[in-house]
Amino acid sequence: MGIHHRKASSKAGLPPGTLMHVGERKAEEVQVTVMQYNGSDLLEKDGVSVRECEALPADESFVSWINMSGVHEAGIVETFGRVFGLHPLLLEDILHTGQRPKQEDYEAYLFIVLRMLSFDVEKRELLSEQISLVVGPRYVISFQEREGDVFGLLRERIRGGKGRIRKMGADYLAYALMDAVVDQYFVILENFGEELEALQDVVLSGPASDTLGSIQTLKREMLWMRKSVWPLREVLGELQRGESSLMGPEVLPFLRDVYDHSIQVVDTLETFRDMAAATLEVYLSSLSNRMNEVMKVLTIIATIFIPLTFIAGVYGMNFRYMPELEWRWGYAAVWLVMIVAGGLMLLAFRRKKWL
Amino acid sequence: MGIHHRKASSKAGLPPGTLMHVGERKAEEVQVTVMQYNGSDLLEKDGVSVRECEALPADESFVSWINMSGVHEAGIVETFGRVFGLHPLLLEDILHTGQRPKQEDYEAYLFIVLRMLSFDVEKRELLSEQISLVVGPRYVISFQEREGDVFGLLRERIRGGKGRIRKMGADYLAYALMDAVVDQYFVILENFGEELEALQDVVLSGPASDTLGSIQTLKREMLWMRKSVWPLREVLGELQRGESSLMGPEVLPFLRDVYDHSIQVVDTLETFRDMAAATLEVYLSSLSNRMNEVMKVLTIIATIFIPLTFIAGVYGMNFRYMPELEWRWGYAAVWLVMIVAGGLMLLAFRRKKWL
Amino acid sequence: MGIHHRKASSKAGLPPGTLMHVGERKAEEVQVTVMQYNGSDLLEKDGVSVRECEALPADESFVSWINMSGVHEAGIVETFGRVFGLHPLLLEDILHTGQRPKQEDYEAYLFIVLRMLSFDVEKRELLSEQISLVVGPRYVISFQEREGDVFGLLRERIRGGKGRIRKMGADYLAYALMDAVVDQYFVILENFGEELEALQDVVLSGPASDTLGSIQTLKREMLWMRKSVWPLREVLGELQRGESSLMGPEVLPFLRDVYDHSIQVVDTLETFRDMAAATLEVYLSSLSNRMNEVMKVLTIIATIFIPLTFIAGVYGMNFRYMPELEWRWGYAAVWLVMIVAGGLMLLAFRRKKWL
Amino acid sequence: MGIHHRKASSKAGLPPGTLMHVGERKAEEVQVTVMQYNGSDLLEKDGVSVRECEALPADESFVSWINMSGVHEAGIVETFGRVFGLHPLLLEDILHTGQRPKQEDYEAYLFIVLRMLSFDVEKRELLSEQISLVVGPRYVISFQEREGDVFGLLRERIRGGKGRIRKMGADYLAYALMDAVVDQYFVILENFGEELEALQDVVLSGPASDTLGSIQTLKREMLWMRKSVWPLREVLGELQRGESSLMGPEVLPFLRDVYDHSIQVVDTLETFRDMAAATLEVYLSSLSNRMNEVMKVLTIIATIFIPLTFIAGVYGMNFRYMPELEWRWGYAAVWLVMIVAGGLMLLAFRRKKWL
Amino acid sequence: MGIHHRKASSKAGLPPGTLMHVGERKAEEVQVTVMQYNGSDLLEKDGVSVRECEALPADESFVSWINMSGVHEAGIVETFGRVFGLHPLLLEDILHTGQRPKQEDYEAYLFIVLRMLSFDVEKRELLSEQISLVVGPRYVISFQEREGDVFGLLRERIRGGKGRIRKMGADYLAYALMDAVVDQYFVILENFGEELEALQDVVLSGPASDTLGSIQTLKREMLWMRKSVWPLREVLGELQRGESSLMGPEVLPFLRDVYDHSIQVVDTLETFRDMAAATLEVYLSSLSNRMNEVMKVLTIIATIFIPLTFIAGVYGMNFRYMPELEWRWGYAAVWLVMIVAGGLMLLAFRRKKWL
Repeated sequence: MGIHHRKASSKAGLPPGTLMHVGERKAEEVQVTVMQYNGSDLLEKDGVSVRECEALPADESFVSWINMSGVHEAGIVETFGRVFGLHPLLLEDILHTGQRPKQEDYEAYLFIVLRMLSFDVEKRELLSEQISLVVGPRYVISFQEREGDVFGLLRERIRGGKGRIRKMGADYLAYALMDAVVDQYFVILENFGEELEALQDVVLSGPASDTLGSIQTLKREMLWMRKSVWPLREVLGELQRGESSLMGPEVLPFLRDVYDHSIQVVDTLETFRDMAAATLEVYLSSLSNRMNEVMKVLTIIATIFIPLTFIAGVYGMNFRYMPELEWRWGYAAVWLVMIVAGGLMLLAFRRKKWL
Repeated sequence: MGIHHRKASSKAGLPPGTLMHVGERKAEEVQVTVMQYNGSDLLEKDGVSVRECEALPADESFVSWINMSGVHEAGIVETFGRVFGLHPLLLEDILHTGQRPKQEDYEAYLFIVLRMLSFDVEKRELLSEQISLVVGPRYVISFQEREGDVFGLLRERIRGGKGRIRKMGADYLAYALMDAVVDQYFVILENFGEELEALQDVVLSGPASDTLGSIQTLKREMLWMRKSVWPLREVLGELQRGESSLMGPEVLPFLRDVYDHSIQVVDTLETFRDMAAATLEVYLSSLSNRMNEVMKVLTIIATIFIPLTFIAGVYGMNFRYMPELEWRWGYAAVWLVMIVAGGLMLLAFRRKKWL
Repeated sequence: MGIHHRKASSKAGLPPGTLMHVGERKAEEVQVTVMQYNGSDLLEKDGVSVRECEALPADESFVSWINMSGVHEAGIVETFGRVFGLHPLLLEDILHTGQRPKQEDYEAYLFIVLRMLSFDVEKRELLSEQISLVVGPRYVISFQEREGDVFGLLRERIRGGKGRIRKMGADYLAYALMDAVVDQYFVILENFGEELEALQDVVLSGPASDTLGSIQTLKREMLWMRKSVWPLREVLGELQRGESSLMGPEVLPFLRDVYDHSIQVVDTLETFRDMAAATLEVYLSSLSNRMNEVMKVLTIIATIFIPLTFIAGVYGMNFRYMPELEWRWGYAAVWLVMIVAGGLMLLAFRRKKWL
Repeated sequence: MGIHHRKASSKAGLPPGTLMHVGERKAEEVQVTVMQYNGSDLLEKDGVSVRECEALPADESFVSWINMSGVHEAGIVETFGRVFGLHPLLLEDILHTGQRPKQEDYEAYLFIVLRMLSFDVEKRELLSEQISLVVGPRYVISFQEREGDVFGLLRERIRGGKGRIRKMGADYLAYALMDAVVDQYFVILENFGEELEALQDVVLSGPASDTLGSIQTLKREMLWMRKSVWPLREVLGELQRGESSLMGPEVLPFLRDVYDHSIQVVDTLETFRDMAAATLEVYLSSLSNRMNEVMKVLTIIATIFIPLTFIAGVYGMNFRYMPELEWRWGYAAVWLVMIVAGGLMLLAFRRKKWL
Repeated sequence: MGIHHRKASSKAGLPPGTLMHVGERKAEEVQVTVMQYNGSDLLEKDGVSVRECEALPADESFVSWINMSGVHEAGIVETFGRVFGLHPLLLEDILHTGQRPKQEDYEAYLFIVLRMLSFDVEKRELLSEQISLVVGPRYVISFQEREGDVFGLLRERIRGGKGRIRKMGADYLAYALMDAVVDQYFVILENFGEELEALQDVVLSGPASDTLGSIQTLKREMLWMRKSVWPLREVLGELQRGESSLMGPEVLPFLRDVYDHSIQVVDTLETFRDMAAATLEVYLSSLSNRMNEVMKVLTIIATIFIPLTFIAGVYGMNFRYMPELEWRWGYAAVWLVMIVAGGLMLLAFRRKKWL
């Protein structure tokens, strides 16, 4: 948290369009891979240089997917910009990896920013990565911050050549990428759901000292996810209305579908947030409950024994003239009194339902 | 909760339109029943095969209601899709039983998703089931997740042949199905209302240890119901505006009526949610109240007896020269002092209204 | 609360338009009264049969106000419906007395549902009754759930023949009825205001054990009133925009006036709700305050006397060799020590401002 | 609070337009003053009779400002209404001094209701007074509830004859009146700001018993001010859009300016409300903090001395065979044990940072 | 806080357009600097008199940036107004330095108000300064409250002559100024983020007595920042829609960019506010937790030793006939009983997980 702001501030005052990577450096080296396909053929290349990409979009019968992992080298992104004629502010947004999801229509191409979420199970941490898509008439360029993504199955589908994807255009590819990102959100939600259930169980059975911290961590992660999902919903809402000429009519039902999914994600997230808030409430009132229990134990013990100790204290006094001390059954009588008094106390507590 | 997310995530990355059931398998086997009627005649068949359905919509004088219970066999749903020419994404939505209520106009037919709620009285649990309706010009196909529904009385009305339903078209049938689902919501609300009243009584008379859990369970159930009802309201709002040509003008007043009902459900639900929140507040402050009571008892007992014990302790000391010990009435005087001191304490407590 | 839901659920599944009373039966028998007036003449009849009403609207020079108290006899309402050509769903809404305020324009007549509130001073309970108005070109039919209403002064004005009402049409009569209902809301608000002031005083001076319950009851009543008033505001807002041809232009300023009043009611209600929430806050923190006070008393007493008792205990030990016990002024010295110790404690408490 | 509702309810059921004063009677007698001015001349009269006003608006070269203080005599207001041809509902609104700010365009004149706030420093109370403005083509009539207003400097400006006001029309005069009212709001806000700062200091340094009451009073006053300011913002927003022909184009920038001010008032008020809520939070948690402190003192004292008293009690027992009692250094050893035990306790507390 | 309201109130009642500085006097003396540039040339002058400015905008090939630091001398601002033909209300807004961000289109020029925030690291205080921009066709006039601003790097860029700025018009200069202000917000956010992280650590590890104050200060500062940022978002939203003819089409993408940034600021600020609220929650429940711990210690000690002290008290009684006292192993037996009793207590506490 806060890290990209630190970096962003270091750039305050520089002219807009200055290409300089702002954000955490997440990848070791920049990797460019290319997939080109049409209904019948598929070309796939790894470690492509930017210059080689130049020739790609020329071939109109193919759909080209250029994927770049690692955006910390401003020079490579700049070359991309020159080759594909991208606006400097767009390139800046690719390099500043703290963007909120948005879409901008530059007529010749569509610029879409998404956030790809993943859950680092080991550190129990939510990772967020910026995915920038440039969607042209026959190509899609995707920029990721690091290697490793949620597009593995999509690549398989392209390679497999079955299904719709090989027969459709770049707009469908862009949809498929967005769909993969949103599908991943359901995995995250599932994680949240499980954690939430676990926390609810813990809170009801007996919270440990770190329960509060876990609830707050979960709440914070859901807050961060919300920051990614809410604007995405708007982005998809705008896309599915079909205002951009780059999104063909045959893709619109699919965009509507992924839009529906994003609403579902938002809905579920809000429900989870409400449930987390309720869990916190239960936790806090369980604190009060336990305090009550502690106080009751103290009160019962003190209320029974303090008066009895007083009685014992009375007959521990050393007055010369204390007739009771001389009585034959004085000691027994005092025990009797004490037992009766204690018993009455216990009865009173039972009546108040403290026992 | 969370179950369908687990399943949905297992499908992340698959191509859209892949027909595969996602959700809990709730029915043993798929059941297809058909009712065909017009003003004078009624045909009713159980255990129909999908192929037999193919001929149905051809008969224009009849309204056909095809009902399928159990959607876990993707193959059967796919056959339906082929027979009736349904869009693959629509079929996917039928199979993925975690949809939020929505309506989609596919020109040739209208696709409506609802959620049918029921209350499992035994387990005190709210059950939610997805109902998908495909409304064509002369047919309605309904897909349920399991056998058993809220359409029993509707079937009776069709069989009875009285009233409006036999004289009207498929749009009225669709309305009647939605109306039955919304009517059921009132039954759920009634359950909530009763539970809420019971909880309010419990909280005021003396909350038990599971009261908090019950309030939270109720709140959570209302949260889940809300997820079903809010989007339904929008769906019905859009339908009653009459934008779809499949909904004839004579059905619009009825749609407006069921829309009104859905607003009433939303209203009442929100009121109940406010009341549940208030009940929680009362519960929490009753905890504080009881803590106050416990503390008062402790304070009264301790404040009276600790000083008296001190006095007794003083005269239990073994100093050689303690003149009081030798006095004739020393013991009696000490009792007097202790009784007066205790009495004054009691008076002070009465003044503070602690007694 | 909840009662009409119980009943409504018993009707779940019946065909729409089935005329059957749903709601609490509040009146003993159905009473139909008729007032017919123009600028010069006035006819007034009690205990009219529905059949007699049939002739009424025919007379165009008169405005007819037909009032029916008690709606539990579906048959009579049905007859009305047939005589005046009312839509079955409208009749259903009249019989199901749990409607939220709404207005529906049926071209030939306007259907308006309001909720008349009254305050049962004895039981300190808010009563809510549905008033359904059917406004035709020359007649108004009003349906009430029980006898006794807020229209007494309105009847006097009609009988007195002074003022505007005798000169104007059915739309003005409808306005006058709505105005009377809204005016009554101010009486309710006044009641709430007084109760709120009383509760604020109680909370500040020293809350009793039922204070929390009273605050919650008040909050709940305001919640219920809100349910009646918010939709009414929308209803009046739509009416005053003059979209219905049944509301003539000369009535619009009056409708705007009653619309203003309804906004004022909503405003005041929201302010009262905020104030009730603040009162609850004060109550809760007064609980904490009192707990603090109780704890202080306990702490002061215990902190002073427990150490003193310890000192007394020390010299109550029976060791053979305790030199202090033999001292001439040992006893006096112990008293001195104890008094000084106690005094220092008191000083410390005064410094902490606990005394 | 609540007073005008009490009165308003006493009028429930009367015909609309019945002129009768509803509200607190705040002025002794009705005062009518008139100022007439153009660029060169100024006529000023006190104690004018309504009849004399009749001739005023006829003179087209002058702008007339008629100010009436005290609206409890319905007769005078009625005469005004007849003389200037005002709508009965407008007159009713003037007399019922509980209106929320609004503006109504009656074509021939504009009716504006504002609320003038003042702060009674002595009673520390917020006073609210209704100002009704009738803005005609060449006149402004202002109705106040009592003598004394915020228009003193405005009168001076008119008398001084400098600045814009003498050269402009009645619309500018109306603007100047509204501006004076809104300027006064800043004075109120300043008062709130000072009180808030004082309360924040008190809460941090050590809250007294009436702190809670002061915070709540402040919150309530801000709530009441909000009721006046929010609708005013809408009123000014509508006016500055220039929809009324009575507001000339040269006045619109000024209206935009006062509209800006009203937004600033709303903004600051909302910020203050948030800050008051935060102050309450601090107050409440300072209660918890002090409770913690009290409990710590009790616990430290009790935890140290109760075990020591137990040890002393043991050696106060009268068993015949207690070898320790006979030891030469038994007494000293017990003291040693007790001192060590007490010291260890203190160390433990220091470790827990309770000391 | 509140300071400018105090001053603003001192002006209540004065005629609008009266030029008088309202606000804290933040600069020692007024400084006017001018930068004039085109693609090739740059003129830069310090300590310019207003009269010298008069000639500036005449030169059409140059873009002129006139910057005035210190607005407390109304006379200079007034001269500016006369020279550039600015509206009196605009000048008033420049002098009253408590404006909320806004933009007003005066056709000949555009008036934009921003708030420049800075963080006084020493006093840990958020400083807010009003920046007023007047954007003409070929000039920008900026008014600051004090010397020292966030435009240093911008000046360097102009001087350096590289990049876009020297080739573009006054609209781009205005954009660059706004961009610098918004960039500075990220620095502030970074500060907030760091403070928030520090507070979260403190709260989890063990809050000090001033933790609550720090949280509240942070919340208040974020509240103040919010007041500056929310309206700015609207201002930039309006500007980027390109409604003003003074903002050329080539600047719109840049305005959209800074608009995006402002949304990002708002988003992050809201997230931080939620996190601060969560931190407060954690703090408050850590108070409860510590109270619980304190109570447990007290209860354990008291519950173990009070009964033991009672037993010791019993055998400290002086009854003549107490058989146990005479027993050979009485003393040992009592010790045994006490040890067993104490051990059982400890076991019970362990079971309740209090130890």
